Order: sequence, then C-alpha cells, then structure tokens
Amino acid sequence: MKSRILLPLAATAALLPSLALAQDVEYATASETAFIFNTLLFLIGGFLVFWMAAGFSMLEAGLVRSKNVTTQLTKNIALFALAAIMYWLVGYNIMYPGDAWTIQGVLGSFGTKDIKTTIDAGGYSNASDFFFQLMFCATTASIVSGTLAERIKLWPFLIFTVILTGFIYPIEASWQWGAGWLSDAGFSDFAGSTLVHAAGGFAALAGAIILGPRIGKYKGGRVMPMQGSNLPLATLGTFILWLGWFGFNGASQLAMGSMVDADAIAQIFANTNMAAAAGAIAALALTQIMYKKVDLTMVLNGALAGLVSITAGPLDPTLFGALWIGAVGGAIVVFAVPFLDKLKIDDVVGAIPVHLLAGFWGTLVVPVYTADTSFATQIMGFAAIGAFVFVVSSIVWMILKSTVGIRVSEEAEIAGLDISELGMEAYPEFSKS
Amino acid sequence: MKSRILLPLAATAALLPSLALAQDVEYATASETAFIFNTLLFLIGGFLVFWMAAGFSMLEAGLVRSKNVTTQLTKNIALFALAAIMYWLVGYNIMYPGDAWTIQGVLGSFGTKDIKTTIDAGGYSNASDFFFQLMFCATTASIVSGTLAERIKLWPFLIFTVILTGFIYPIEASWQWGAGWLSDAGFSDFAGSTLVHAAGGFAALAGAIILGPRIGKYKGGRVMPMQGSNLPLATLGTFILWLGWFGFNGASQLAMGSMVDADAIAQIFANTNMAAAAGAIAALALTQIMYKKVDLTMVLNGALAGLVSITAGPLDPTLFGALWIGAVGGAIVVFAVPFLDKLKIDDVVGAIPVHLLAGFWGTLVVPVYTADTSFATQIMGFAAIGAFVFVVSSIVWMILKSTVGIRVSEEAEIAGLDISELGMEAYPEFSKS
Amino acid sequence: MKSRILLPLAATAALLPSLALAQDVEYATASETAFIFNTLLFLIGGFLVFWMAAGFSMLEAGLVRSKNVTTQLTKNIALFALAAIMYWLVGYNIMYPGDAWTIQGVLGSFGTKDIKTTIDAGGYSNASDFFFQLMFCATTASIVSGTLAERIKLWPFLIFTVILTGFIYPIEASWQWGAGWLSDAGFSDFAGSTLVHAAGGFAALAGAIILGPRIGKYKGGRVMPMQGSNLPLATLGTFILWLGWFGFNGASQLAMGSMVDADAIAQIFANTNMAAAAGAIAALALTQIMYKKVDLTMVLNGALAGLVSITAGPLDPTLFGALWIGAVGGAIVVFAVPFLDKLKIDDVVGAIPVHLLAGFWGTLVVPVYTADTSFATQIMGFAAIGAFVFVVSSIVWMILKSTVGIRVSEEAEIAGLDISELGMEAYPEFSKS
Repeated sequence: MKSRILLPLAATAALLPSLALAQDVEYATASETAFIFNTLLFLIGGFLVFWMAAGFSMLEAGLVRSKNVTTQLTKNIALFALAAIMYWLVGYNIMYPGDAWTIQGVLGSFGTKDIKTTIDAGGYSNASDFFFQLMFCATTASIVSGTLAERIKLWPFLIFTVILTGFIYPIEASWQWGAGWLSDAGFSDFAGSTLVHAAGGFAALAGAIILGPRIGKYKGGRVMPMQGSNLPLATLGTFILWLGWFGFNGASQLAMGSMVDADAIAQIFANTNMAAAAGAIAALALTQIMYKKVDLTMVLNGALAGLVSITAGPLDPTLFGALWIGAVGGAIVVFAVPFLDKLKIDDVVGAIPVHLLAGFWGTLVVPVYTADTSFATQIMGFAAIGAFVFVVSSIVWMILKSTVGIRVSEEAEIAGLDISELGMEAYPEFSKS
Repeated sequence: MKSRILLPLAATAALLPSLALAQDVEYATASETAFIFNTLLFLIGGFLVFWMAAGFSMLEAGLVRSKNVTTQLTKNIALFALAAIMYWLVGYNIMYPGDAWTIQGVLGSFGTKDIKTTIDAGGYSNASDFFFQLMFCATTASIVSGTLAERIKLWPFLIFTVILTGFIYPIEASWQWGAGWLSDAGFSDFAGSTLVHAAGGFAALAGAIILGPRIGKYKGGRVMPMQGSNLPLATLGTFILWLGWFGFNGASQLAMGSMVDADAIAQIFANTNMAAAAGAIAALALTQIMYKKVDLTMVLNGALAGLVSITAGPLDPTLFGALWIGAVGGAIVVFAVPFLDKLKIDDVVGAIPVHLLAGFWGTLVVPVYTADTSFATQIMGFAAIGAFVFVVSSIVWMILKSTVGIRVSEEAEIAGLDISELGMEAYPEFSKS
Repeated sequence: MKSRILLPLAATAALLPSLALAQDVEYATASETAFIFNTLLFLIGGFLVFWMAAGFSMLEAGLVRSKNVTTQLTKNIALFALAAIMYWLVGYNIMYPGDAWTIQGVLGSFGTKDIKTTIDAGGYSNASDFFFQLMFCATTASIVSGTLAERIKLWPFLIFTVILTGFIYPIEASWQWGAGWLSDAGFSDFAGSTLVHAAGGFAALAGAIILGPRIGKYKGGRVMPMQGSNLPLATLGTFILWLGWFGFNGASQLAMGSMVDADAIAQIFANTNMAAAAGAIAALALTQIMYKKVDLTMVLNGALAGLVSITAGPLDPTLFGALWIGAVGGAIVVFAVPFLDKLKIDDVVGAIPVHLLAGFWGTLVVPVYTADTSFATQIMGFAAIGAFVFVVSSIVWMILKSTVGIRVSEEAEIAGLDISELGMEAYPEFSKS
C-alpha cells in the first residue's frame, strides 16, 4: 500500500447502497455525490476567499508609506485571526438564528463538535459552510483597515474589529443570508456587494470621519499626495484579490452537485473575470484622458471596483453585461477618489470608492439582468444596511474615541506608527527619501 | 437552515432520473457526474492559469530596474484585462470557427448569454471552457511584455496586445486546437509549448529586433549587466508560475470525468513538477560549473524553461523522461541567454530562451514518448506557427513604429519610464544607488 | 466543438457499466466516482502544499538581512527541486517499502511509467499520491534552511538536503506512514507535527549547534537584534503557508469519495484555520503584555506554531479544542525564542520553536481528543523520530564540516553571502542603512 493511512474504502463501501444492480457493480448515490461536490465547493471557495486576506494585506502594505507598513501588516493578520474567533464565538449563530436568537443559541459550543455536522443527504458539510462563511466576515473587516491606515491606534482598531466581526456584520448579514426580513422583502445580493463590501465601506467611512485625515493631507485648500511605498506589493495584492474573488462569487452559488449548478459557477467565473478586466481598462482609459497619464493605483482599484460591482449579481448578466457593469465600477473609482478628497475624507487606499460606492452600483444594477428584483428594493436594502452599519459603527468609534482614544499622537504619526506603536520597521535597511 | 441561500436540492433532485432503483435511493448519472467533474477541472485549471498573470507581473517587476517597475506592472495588469476583453470580443470565436469563419460567428454576442452554454450530457459547461481558454490567450501576451521592458511606450505595447490576443493568437491556435490543418497534419502540442509559449516568444522576438536594445546595454563589444531590482519578487513570480502550470498542463487533459482522465491529470502534475525541478537544478549546476557562481536568475529561468519544455507532452513521458526533458530545457537557458546578447537582441527577462527556445525543444521531443507523432511534423508545426507569428508581429510592430512610434525618447529611457511615462515611482522612498 | 482536443467521451462511456438501468441512462459507479474524488483531493492538496515552498521562501527572505536574501532564495528553490528529484530517485520507495526494502525496490524506475499507476477500483491514482507525498518531503527540507541562514555555505547545505530528502525523511516517515513499527505501536500523527515539522526542526537544531551562531549575534552576555529586512515578504510568506496548510492537513484525510471523508476534510479545514488564528492572537496578546509592544514577527510565528500544533490531530478536536491547542502553540513561540537565545542557539527565523517545539506540543496533545492514543506512545514516537533525525543529521553535518566545511569565512559573512557566495544582490538599488 502506498498510502500513508489506509484508505477507508471498506467504510466507504459500507455507506453505499448494498443493492447489487449488477454483479460486482455498485453505483454512486446522487445525494452522496452532491454532498461531496457541494462540500468541495465550499472548501475551494473558502480557501480562495481566505487568500483575499493576504491580498488586502499586500494591497494596503503597498499603498501606505514605509513608516507605517509593519503596523498595517499587523492589523491585517490580527483582524483576520480575530474574525475567525469571533465568528465562531458568536457571529455564525447570530447570522443564522434559526427560529429566534437565544443566549444558548448564539454562543459557539465549547464541548462537542461545535459546528454540529450531521451527515445526511441534506446537501453539504456544515463545517465547510462555516469555513466558507467566516471568510466573508473576515473580508468585511479587511476593508476597514485600509481606509484608516497611518493614524489609527492598533488596539482600538482591533476592538472595533471584534465588534464588527462578532456582531455588526452577523446581524446585518442575517437580514439577508440568514433568511431574515431583507430576504423576505425580495432584496438580492448574490455574494455581497452590499452585505460585505458596502458594509465594510460604511464602517470605514464612519471611522474616517471620526478619526479625521492624516496630518498634512489637506493643507490649505490643497490635497497633498502621499504615495504608496511599494507598488509591486499593491499590484500583487490586487491579483490575489482577483483570484480570491472567483471563490467569493463562484462558491456563493452554494451548490455544485448538479449540472445546472456547475454551469452557473462557470458563468460566474467568466463574468467575474470580465467585470474586473473592464474595471481595470475603464480606469486605465479614464486616467489617460483626464490626467494624460495612466495611474497604476487607479487601474488596480478599477479592477477591484469592477469585481465589487459584479458581486451582487454575477450569474445572470451576459459577458457584455459584466463588461459594462464592471466598467462603470472602474469609472466610479476614478471620479470618487478626488471627490472624497474634496470632502476631506481621507481614505488611504481608496476603499470607500471601491467597496462602498461600487458596492452600491453593483447592488443597484441587479434588476437589469435578474428577474424578480426591483430597483426600489435594491436601494432600500442598501440604505437599510448602510444606515445600520454606519450608525452602529459611528457609535462604537465615538465610544472608543472618548475612552481609550483612537488616534496616535501627532509626533507618533509623523514618526510613523511602526516606530511609535510597534518599535519595528518594515524595511530597516532601505533608507527613506 | 445554515445556508445563505437555500440549496436548490429540490431542483437538483428533479434533474435526476426518477426511476427508483431501490426505495428512496437515487443514483448519480454518469453523464451528469462527468459534466460536473469536467467543468470543475476547467475552473480550477482556469484560476491557476489566471494566477500566472500575477506570476509574470512579479517576475518582470523583479527583473527590471526600479525606475521601470510601475510601468511594467501597469503593462501586465492591462494586458491581462485587454486579453480578457479581446478574447471574448473576437478571439474565442476566431479560434473555434466551427465550419467556417463568418462575420456574425466571430463577434462575441452582446445580447443573450454569449457563451451559449447548453446543459446536456455533452461533457462540460461552455462557460468553463471559455474561462479556461482565455487564460491561455492572456499568457501568450504576458510573455511579450518582459522582453520589451524598459524602453517600449505603454500605449503602442497595449495596441499590439489587442492585436495579438484578438487575432494573432486565436488564428494560430485555431490551426491546432480549433481542429484546423495542423491538427489534421498530426502535429502534437498538448498544452502549448508552441501555440502559447513559442508564439509569445516569436512576438517578443519580432518586437525586440524592431525596438532595439536598451541604451547602454551593448557598449562597444561588451554586454553591460543591468541587474534586476528585486529578486524576491522575481522568485515569487517563478513560484507563482510553477503553481499555475499545474493548471496549465493538468487541465489541458480537458476531462476529469473518468478514472483514466483523473489518472492522466495526476501523471501530468507529477511530470510537470519534475521537469521544473530538473530545469532548475540543471541551471544551478551549469552556472556553478561555467561561472563558478550560482546565478539565481538563471535558476529561476531554468525552472521556467523546464516547465515550457514539458508542456508539449506532459502526459506520456515517465518521470525520468520529464527529468531529462526539463533538464535540457534548463541548460538551453544557460547557453541561450549569452548567445542572444551576442546577437545584440536585448531580452530583459530572458523570455525568448525560456519560451521560444525551450518551447521548440519541448515540441521537438514529443515523439520520443508519444505515439503517432513525428519529428518532421513537430518541426513543421513549430516552423509554421513561428513564421506566421513572427511575420505578422513584425508587420504590426513596423506599422506601430512608423505611425505612433514604439520607443520612448532617450531622456525618458534614462530617467526611467515610471517618471517619464506615468509620473509614478514604484518605490518612492527607497533611494537609488 | 469548442474543445481544444475532443473530449474522450466515447472512451469514458466505454468504461461505464453497460447495463442499461433505464432507457438511455447510465449511472456512475461508486468506485469510479470515489477514485476521481480521491485523486482530485491529492492534486488540490498537493498544489497547496507545493505553494508552501513559496511561503517558506518569502518568509525567510523577509526575515534575513538584505545582504543574504539572494542566497536564501536560491537555497529555497534549489532545495525544493532537489527534494522533488531525490524523493523520486529513492525516497518514495524507501518510505513505502512494501514487504521489505530491496535494492531494485528502492530505485525510482527509469524506463516504464515509474509511478506504476494501475487503474482499478482501489481508490486513487498512484501518481497523485506520489505528487502529494513528495510535497511533505520538500516541506521538511524547507524548515531547515531558515534556521541556518546568513552563515552556511550554499553547496554543503544542498548536500545535506539531498540526504535529508532522499534518506532521513523517508526512513523516519516510513515508520509511521509506511505502515512501520511506530504505526503498529499506536503512534498518531495525522499530517506530520512530528514526522514533518519536528523532524525538520531536529535537522535544523543539529545544524545550528554545529554551525554556531552568526558573528555578533551574542556579544558578551547580550543578544543583539538582527532585524529582518522585509516584513511584507515575511507576512506574505506566512499567509502562503497558512493557505497551503489547508492542503497539508485537509488532504491528509487521504480520501474524499464518501460523505464521511468530505465532512472530515471540512472539519479539518475549520480546525486548521482556528488553530492558526488562535496562535496569532496568543502571540499578539503575550508580546503586548510582556514587552508592551506587539511584535509582528512573533505574531507570524505564532500563527505558524498554531498550525504546526493542530497538524498531528486536526480532525478530532472541536473548534474550541483547536483554539486552545493553537493558542498554546503560539505561546510556546513567544517563550521559546528568547530561551533559545539564552542557549546561544541562533535560529534566524524561529523555525525551531515553531516546528520542533510546537510540533512536540501538537503531537503530545493528540490523546485529549483522539481515541485509542496515549500520551506515553506519543512521547515515545516523538522521541524516537527526534533522536533518529538529530543523531543522523548531526553525523552528516559533522562530516560535511570536517570535509568541505559548512560555514563561510568571517569576511564573507560580514560582507553578506549574496556578494561572497553568489555575486548577486537581491536589491542592488536600495541603499543599506
């Protein structure tokens, strides 16, 4: 035997129907095969969305100045880890309350297998669903860290992350994906343009307003450029996110056990890729036209905005639909980034245009291709989630500001958070200009 | 229910044969199961080959000088996005013309679902095939950008990419993979040593000759070294490409719905890995012997050349076969890089040795292990595709040169394309030596 | 036809049972479906573990000083390539000796298909198993390179790698996974906390002792910090490893052809992720408490230690179990890193705490959740493998030291290995502080 551990083929065989259809031939049951395919979809989708955490880390590390890179990396890995724990501790059960939220129903179990998988013909492993869903919770938190970079204290940010991943995201997501009132109202958000991306964007927006802009960003009436320190990292991060998005959107089909589902996943992959490409090209062309020079960071954010735009409805559009939906997303970024600067909202990496505004666009446009949806309901759902996340986030940020404080001192900000907060430089040997 | 959207199990069940073989047991049909496996193969293979776009970006960003990094990144993400659009707009239908090329047959449809998936027992989702095939088109374009780095203008390069991905690649690929005349002639190129890699290499070669070498590369009779600015990025890029190649070669089996196909994919994975390893070790040993010092960039290119070498026939060789085929590929790189310099063909990242020459080697060697192939046909096919791509590319480059111009000014080249073309540095804070 | 090569559907159909259950409907056999799923598991798991080689490369390149980065990258890609060749040449057959080791049984075959795949109902493609198993062999070697960085000569390191991957790892792994005496004794190590991680750690420990610390690391009684040159790379490496670990642990279930197996893989994914998260948070909190500042490198190593800790038994713990097992792993790193420095064992990247000590912890804790295991047997197994690997590695290192020498000269070490060993800088344009 070449296997490390003997294959439990005997056990496998025992699960199969013993009815001999023909001599020595047993057939795969449809329900078992579907269970395996569905579970596999969640696992592949889940590890691809996990990978997006690395994408956000690299994107943000590349777009901040080198004196804040270590802090940004620390926030990103810590927020993912906190999300993983909080989503188990309370988030998952809040998001899927069953008939009602109860105290014992909300807490992750500490004793027996918490994710309570029962193996039956009912479709998929609960553990795989848990794994997949937690990645969406973590993604929501990843969106916040970029906007607030370069001036927020580490620990208050992490406290906010705990509340966002344990409570804010699970509650609003339950309205739709937990079979809640938005779902009943006919709101449509296939993989989370609103539930994940705009929600993260609203939490970031609340923080950006309360935290204020970086020192020197808006001098007099002028916007001072603060260039990212490492554009290859930012580009790598964008490619990672693009890759992860195939899992984000594709596995949100939630089933792969039939030809119809497998084909739907394939359509989603093709549309997701097209929207990203169109967003990138739209930003490329627009920055050339408007500024006479292509702006790489706009192209990267354009691709991401294209991805966010298609996320609310990646299945139904034609490829041409995905193209124009993504292109509009990319255009939104090009116009929204300077507009936010006019409002003196300092969004270090452009997360609000990419996730909130393109998230709105993606949510709004769903009825063009998806039956049984309406623009009014789409706007209503977006507004409801936006208001909830923005208001609750603002309250949390205000409480943090008035208790532990959320902003580093002026000297610490000028020296850089890596020295002042962590005492550890990201590139200790490369001299700074 | 724990799922975000209720699993369409009822729908799934409806697709299954209603014949009750035993009480309450339904069996999976062979055609449906095969359809799902085949589609899944294209999707996994497709996202792995997508990931190669990130690999080329990192490899090239690491091997150019820091003053040209932003431009190189911009080219890479833009070329992928353009390929995605052009392959839909015309490329896919040119590549698979059916009975004949017609105007309406060539254009991607703008209205109904363009990729015209029909769900039947015929094997796989058309959308998954489209997704997978477009990645090969984009790979061909990625090969060109590295060779021409550090002196070509952004927009003429992108115009060439449009023509390459929309027309040149689809036409030559249709000769073989579109059931065209090369396929009829018995040419064998499993995953594209010639159709993708050598084709990209010929387009790059045409460009390199017409564009000329970088200023200062060949001074008097000497070759001036111009070192890559970031070798960790180049190494990361190589690992990414290596990973993506499992999808490139493995999913080119095009089916996973039977034991024979699954086993073939596994053989391909093992052989692909072995060829890469052998190419790396060959370059490691040869640079030690020839120059008394190991050259990391040669080791990286050696691994890539090993991968290109096995791509034309990754299924049939034994592991020992993959070893020597890959090792010869790695050796080719070590000898070809200085040879190209003697010809004063300035290939910034070594793409011509890796993709064109190792591509030739991989194509040539197929008959050693693959039945019903001949050296003569292999050479003929390589020559036909090489001639077509080289001639057409040369014409396009010449037209671009004589109209918009393809080369930046001398001052711009010396200052670096990031400043002159984009006004955006990749590493603005790290001082340059 | 849209396919590149016609789908061998006819061939597929021929493999299926010809018994017509209903008119025009054929059913998938259970054994064929299981074969495909199992093979696919090995392939997905294998490419994810392959990706860990990139993770180690980036982690180590980020944690060494910039003057040694090229050398570290070269070691990492070369060791993977050597492992791939050696595991085929002798390792795989040593690890799975069948009834007994014989000369002809040990050597990888050079003629016919070496991996001797026979397609039957027996579960999976041998080639996929070979591909998957070789990645574990390579991982063991990857662990060693980080500890010995910045002072070991390239070639002696590579010679050691040849012996480790061709003989040391396969022999000790055969004791358990080759159905050897440890397996018979009831030792339990699901995915290799001991067999892979601690084994790599022991080989590294032997090397570190014999090689001695870097010049200037321990001056008088003080430990001089030698900061990593590129923390984004180190963080990227950690995320890559975390991603790869889903394949490392998940695919070690070795089968996906039944609902029970698919569910087990999902449980493993969820537990693996939880342990990593808990390890990261433990290190985050402890460094804050102990040093008043969070230490990013500790957080990264904490996540990795969490992963190593769950590797010996990722299936049976509840999520809460995975949480505390991982957290203890993370805590071990925080305490062990300074402890090793007290012993003047210079472990550049912290691989001994992460892989050896957390590997011990993970192995020890298995009986808490896994039936039919005992602490005594776990300790015995760990000690047996540790003693074997440490003694044999020490002998090999001593022989290398007394023959070719293993350490670069003092001047070479101070100048950096990139200049002295390779003559190629990793970042030639970024001036060093």
